[in-house]
Order: sequence, then C-alpha cells, then structure tokens
Amino acid sequence: MRKILIIGAGKSSSYLIKYLLDKSQSENLHITIGDLNVENAKKLVGSHNNVNIVHLDVFNAQSRTIAVKDADIVVSMLPARFHIEVAKDCITYKKHMVTASYVSAEMQALNEDAIANGLVFMNEIGVDPGIDHMSAMQVIDQIRDKGGKMILFESFTGGLVAPESDTNLWNYKFTWNPRNVVVAGQGGAAKFLQEGQFKYIPYNRLFRRTEFLEVEGYGRFEAYANRDSLKYQNVYGLDYIKTLYRGTMRRVGFSRAWNVFVQLGMTDDSYTIDDSINMSYRDFVNAFLPYSPTDSVELKFRHALKIDQDDIVWDKFLELDLFNSEKMVVLEKATPAQILQKILLDSWTLNQDDKDMIVMYHKFGYELNSKKHQIDATMVTVGEDQTYTAMAKTVGLPVAIATVAILNGKIKTPGVQIPITKEVYTPILKELETYGVVFKEKEVSYLGYNPLNV
Amino acid sequence: MRKILIIGAGKSSSYLIKYLLDKSQSENLHITIGDLNVENAKKLVGSHNNVNIVHLDVFNAQSRTIAVKDADIVVSMLPARFHIEVAKDCITYKKHMVTASYVSAEMQALNEDAIANGLVFMNEIGVDPGIDHMSAMQVIDQIRDKGGKMILFESFTGGLVAPESDTNLWNYKFTWNPRNVVVAGQGGAAKFLQEGQFKYIPYNRLFRRTEFLEVEGYGRFEAYANRDSLKYQNVYGLDYIKTLYRGTMRRVGFSRAWNVFVQLGMTDDSYTIDDSINMSYRDFVNAFLPYSPTDSVELKFRHALKIDQDDIVWDKFLELDLFNSEKMVVLEKATPAQILQKILLDSWTLNQDDKDMIVMYHKFGYELNSKKHQIDATMVTVGEDQTYTAMAKTVGLPVAIATVAILNGKIKTPGVQIPITKEVYTPILKELETYGVVFKEKEVSYLGYNPLNV
Repeated sequence: MRKILIIGAGKSSSYLIKYLLDKSQSENLHITIGDLNVENAKKLVGSHNNVNIVHLDVFNAQSRTIAVKDADIVVSMLPARFHIEVAKDCITYKKHMVTASYVSAEMQALNEDAIANGLVFMNEIGVDPGIDHMSAMQVIDQIRDKGGKMILFESFTGGLVAPESDTNLWNYKFTWNPRNVVVAGQGGAAKFLQEGQFKYIPYNRLFRRTEFLEVEGYGRFEAYANRDSLKYQNVYGLDYIKTLYRGTMRRVGFSRAWNVFVQLGMTDDSYTIDDSINMSYRDFVNAFLPYSPTDSVELKFRHALKIDQDDIVWDKFLELDLFNSEKMVVLEKATPAQILQKILLDSWTLNQDDKDMIVMYHKFGYELNSKKHQIDATMVTVGEDQTYTAMAKTVGLPVAIATVAILNGKIKTPGVQIPITKEVYTPILKELETYGVVFKEKEVSYLGYNPLNV
Repeated sequence: MRKILIIGAGKSSSYLIKYLLDKSQSENLHITIGDLNVENAKKLVGSHNNVNIVHLDVFNAQSRTIAVKDADIVVSMLPARFHIEVAKDCITYKKHMVTASYVSAEMQALNEDAIANGLVFMNEIGVDPGIDHMSAMQVIDQIRDKGGKMILFESFTGGLVAPESDTNLWNYKFTWNPRNVVVAGQGGAAKFLQEGQFKYIPYNRLFRRTEFLEVEGYGRFEAYANRDSLKYQNVYGLDYIKTLYRGTMRRVGFSRAWNVFVQLGMTDDSYTIDDSINMSYRDFVNAFLPYSPTDSVELKFRHALKIDQDDIVWDKFLELDLFNSEKMVVLEKATPAQILQKILLDSWTLNQDDKDMIVMYHKFGYELNSKKHQIDATMVTVGEDQTYTAMAKTVGLPVAIATVAILNGKIKTPGVQIPITKEVYTPILKELETYGVVFKEKEVSYLGYNPLNV
C-alpha cells in the first residue's frame, strides 16, 4: 500500500478525497486524513475502507512528524501560511509534497534540499493558480514547437455562481472566501503590458477599466486586471512578449456597481469605525456621505456617484438593502470592508441547492511565418452541489491526479515547482478531460490592440 | 549672557535668528548656531556679534553633547526625526528645549524626566502646528470663560503663493517641501465629525469634497480635509463637540484639477516604474491610460476623466506641459509621485522675487444662554522675499519668542508640551501681533450645517 497523508479536509477537499478513495483499490492507496476538526472528513469519507481519519494539529510537532513519517506523500490543503512546517518535515523524512498554494519564499528556499533528496514538491496545482498554468503552457509550448513566436497572452479566471443559480442583480454569489472578494485589487496599482507599453491602473480606476469576454454557451463576462499580470512572465518564458494581461472575471455590470463601493471608501480594510456596533446599514452608508439635515442618504448617494434617476445600477444597491435603517451592523470596531462583507453576505450567500461555476479564458497571440494568429481557449466547470463544487473540483482533482502521478513515477523531476512542464501538465490535463474539465480551443483572427492596423 | 544653541539653520530659521540677534543686547543673549553646512547660517548672521557658528553633526555624540552642555536652552530646527538624541542630551544636562515639530512618541516619553528636572520641552510651536494651537485655544478659552459651550470647531491652514506672485493657472507654487504636497492625503481615509456623526472620506474622493472659505481682502479659497481632524479633540478639551474639522487651504479650482492626478494614479508613491529614466512626460501620462494605436494621449486623458472640450481645467494641464514628448523624466526607477513632483517643479518653483503666504481660518461655534453663536478668525501673513518668507516668519517667530520667554521664566511649567495654555499663548500671540501676525476675529451668525433649522 502507498500511503497518502492529506492534511486539512476543508471546503476544497471533497473531490480530492473522492478521487483518491475511488482509486484506492486499483492504485493500492491508503489514505490518512488529518485535521483539527475530523467531522467534515468523516462526512466526506462515509464508510470507505483504505482510509483513516486522525485528529491533527499542524502546530503540534510530535503528532505532525509522526503522521508525515508514516506517509509516502503528503498533500497539504491547509491555508498557504501553514505549509512550511509540514514541508520541512517532508525534507527531513524524505516525502514528496503537493499543495495548491502559491510558492512562498520559505517554500522556494527548500528547493535545493528537495532536489538533493529526489523529492517532488508540487505547488500551485489547483485552480488559479494551477489549471491556468497547465492549460496556458500546453498551448504556449504547442505554438513554440511549431515555430511560432508569442506576442500576446491574456488569461482570465472567475469563480462565479452557475447560471441556474444566478438569481440576483449582481449575478454574483460568494463561492469562496468573501473577504478576498471585498478587498480584491487593493494594495497597489495593477500593472500589465499592452503592445510593449507598461500600463498601471490605480485601485480607484480598476473596476472601470474592464473588458468584455464572450464564452460560447455562457454569454458575456467582463474582467478587471489582476494586481501583477507580469508575475509569470519569466516563468512562462514570455520575456519579450508585447501584451501580457491577467484578470478576474465577473458577469457584465458587476464592476461598475462595485466601483461605487470603492469610490465611497466602503471596501477600506485599513481602519476601524469606532461605533460600528450601533450602526444600521443606513448609518454605515451615511458615514461616507456629507452631513445634511434634510437630504436623504439615497439622494446624497446618487449625487456623490452621479447615478441618474433611471440608471439600472441603482436596483443593485436596493437589492442589498443598503439603505435599511433597521438592519444593524452589530460587528464591534469593524473596518468598512468587514461591514460591507456582512451586508453582502445577506444577499450573496449560496442557497442549499445553489451551484457554483469556474470560468477560464485564455487568449494566445503569436506570429508564425510573418502572419499573426490567435487561439482562444475557454473552460467552464459547473459544480454539482454545495459539497462537490466547481471550486473543489478544479482545485482537488489536479492535486489528486498529481499525487498519484508522483507516486507512480510519472512526475519525477525533483524540486520545488509549479505545473508548467510537459511532464506534469500533459497527463493531468488529459485525465481532467475525463472528468469534464475541458478547454475548448479555437483559432480566431488576431485582433490584438490594433485590429485595423492603423 | 544666556546661551542659546540653535541646531539646524535651514529655510525656516531666518526670522528665528534675526529675532534673537535683534534682542541679543537687550536680553543679554549669546547665540550659537550649529549645522552640518555653515554657509546658510553665515549668510543669515552677517557680521553680527553675540553669535558664533559651529559645524555640528547631530549624529556625532561628542560634538553634540559639548554644544548642548554649553547652552542654557536648545532650539532644534532639524527635521522631526532628528530631535530625539538632542532631547535626551537636554535631559542629561538639564537644558530647556524648543522645537516646531509634532511631539513624537519618543519625545513624549521624556515628559516625566523633563518635569523631574524642571525643564520646559516646548514643541509644535511653529505654524500648523503652533500658531493654529495658540490662536484656537485663546478663543476657545475666552468662550469657556464667559460660560459658552463649544459645538463646532473648524480650522484651516494653507501655505500658498502671495497674490502678487500668483502667476499660474493653479494659483499655487511650492513654498515648502514639494514631496509633502504630492503625497498629501494618502495613507488612509480622512476622518472628522459633522453634527455628531463620524464621517470618512477616502483618498480618491478627498479633493472632490472641498468647501469654500472667504478671507476679507484675499478672496476665495477652498479646503480639503486633513487625515485626522480628531487629533487634538481631547487636547483642546472638545470631547463632546458636535463638529470638528481640520483642513488644508488652496485657491479655488486647485483640488478639482489635482483630483485628476489622484484618479489616474500619478500621485502613487508605493511602487517604482522600471523604465522611468527613458520616459517623456507624455509617456508618463500614457502609462496610466489604455493603449491605443490611434487615439492621442490628450483625448484618452480627457475621456478617462470626462473632461469636456470647453472645461477650463484643461488649460491647467497644458500649462504643466504634461503632454510634451520631448521633455524627459530622467529620474531612474522613480515612483509616479516622484515623477509628478519633477514635472510640477518645472512650473511651480518660486521665482527669485516671488513671495509666499500663510493663510489660516478658524470657525468657532458655541452655545451661550441657549443661543448659538459663531466667531470666525482669519490670519494672513505674506513673506518679504525668499529668505524672509511667511513660512519662516510664522514658524521662526513663535519659536524665538517662546525661547526668550522660557529663559525669562515667563513660560515655566515644566514637561513635554505644546502651546495650548494661557501661560504660553498669551504673551506669544501678543508679541506676534507687533510683527504683523494678527488674527482678525469677527462675530458671524451661526451657520453650522443646518442654517435653516429644517
């Protein structure tokens, strides 16, 4: 039996565990799931053999090292900041490791030790980061293999609500950490490359510089720029590319409405409001508007943002019950972002039978034989229910497939890495297709930013 | 002879030194001026007796302690962060100390030692902070002494160019540290009190929520909110006040134009632009606008900010030569704020014979015998030339007057303090009047924020 230790059985581990249990007989796997809270794992596992669930506190060195020692490979599904102690144990006891998280500086520092011990430390193998790396590199490598030269790469991902569960005016519900949604885009200007020029968008303009994307069968989306589009420029081998842009997808109209919160300062997470506990939703909104003895909060809000009487954006704010003077914030000394999150949770929480959706859109522009070409690739995954979500599927399946591939020696190049090599992405993308995670590629005419060549 | 040590003879020490030299005979003063660069001090002193100029490096403990030991009182005109070592020496050798800087936590920590040694450590006795404290507390104390209850306090200060030197469309030139002007308002929402309600303005709205102020003989100004209007609420004894607002004054129209830089992200000081050294002014502007193969930077700029063809704000940007493709940024790896500062310095640097101006405006609202009253107090000081500036006058004179008053035992309450007690402000404000620094007070009808009482 090959022993797999999974640390952390949270929201995103349903498909991971199911995949490994389904393969446990044919692949001769024994799975140990360690978590602080064993209840969720018990629910996911049911009465399956080949698995045991243990109480595991990752900060308790003794129980952690015992668990790591006993495994052949360790999958950490903990939040990124908790990986490092596990990773050090994996070096000490010579175990492979898999995570879906960004490579931290501390993790990267283990690269030489991992190589020296012949260990694969695979990271960023979930969704954004993960499937985006693999699907992008597959096409980029194909273009290069036929002699093409990359001139444009744009990549967009969205975690959204599925069309059948899309029941509000924002066309949005929280399918992942709400806090990340509220503070998205903060902390510095978004930076990207357009036709060889560096471009910068400050936070206060981010949600007004969106672009539209059409996904066959799913209609129109919009996307705003990620903080650092250039993060993988070097890693992807795109040093001389002219256009490089990464963004986050929403349904059309979301960003223009969200921008209102940004403009008023309601997404600020850098200070607390003293008397937030006694505030109504209406009071909260009013704190960002000038005092008036006569004018309504509604009119001050419209005036400050120049929202016309017949602008449909207005209904979005009414739907959130933003001007309610009875609903209380309740939170003590909360930041504006925390209060806004609470208000949004009233409206944007998934219902019991709601489904989520992951959408991805890549554009690859390249030159071949002095002609410009473009390939667009799209992927849509819809969740089954609130346990088997699209998010859990697109995070958990690549993690699971990589774990078995490492055990089977199909992925064997040692070191701290992300899935950008053929050795890694080819078998994983192929197997993902059998689970319905499919990229539709099509040749389109190259548009770039100068379609008329003026 | 009473010995005064002045450390730092920069831009703001001309009036300070002149005052003390003028009084040196009658008051029996000997002045030592210590600076890293003795040239500026030599120019200011001329051939006066009762003064010697020494080379002094404040980080050289030996020369510093020798100088402090030899003095009866020490005036530090260094930047605020350099005061603390001098202050510690003053405790050790039992010397009084005067600065025009904000009280740092380190400085405040010396309070008990200062009291134990009977030493006056006077701070914030320049202009904003300084003259604003004194002039405000004088009126607030008068209102309280006659039984009034403060309900509103608003205070505005501006460092501007004098009307006779006001020659550009922004009605602004740099009369002090340009960097502080470029990054003004950054680092968190502006917070204040309006009619009992906490109000918050995010940076991206700060320059669009100005109010107008009329100063007799000088016309109209506008003001935007300071970061923390509540900073002195407790110190001034205004704990239950309904409206508390502090702001910065500019000429009308400045803020609306400045907001364009804020919106585009050109005031950001948190990241550097890689190829800034090779950028023209036009390239710099273009970095904050979308790529287009055809549209001009000018039209993209107008479109992004919704600036109509006939909007007079446009001429302000043309005046700065913002769209010039020949003028180069030159700075290496500069932040947007650093580049903008360079561009502005081309247009906003004082000419040889330009004069500066300090403007202050206080509004005091109070209740007395169930009636509401208001006193408005304004002060305008215009500089004489580029050495004897209004800034140097309003910073240096109160520092100088306080220094002599401490030597003469007129100011004697020991401890780390700011000038908010009658003992301190009464003699200083009185003497400032003889130098033309005069507050004009007038009773006006109370307006508050509800003039019609609706």
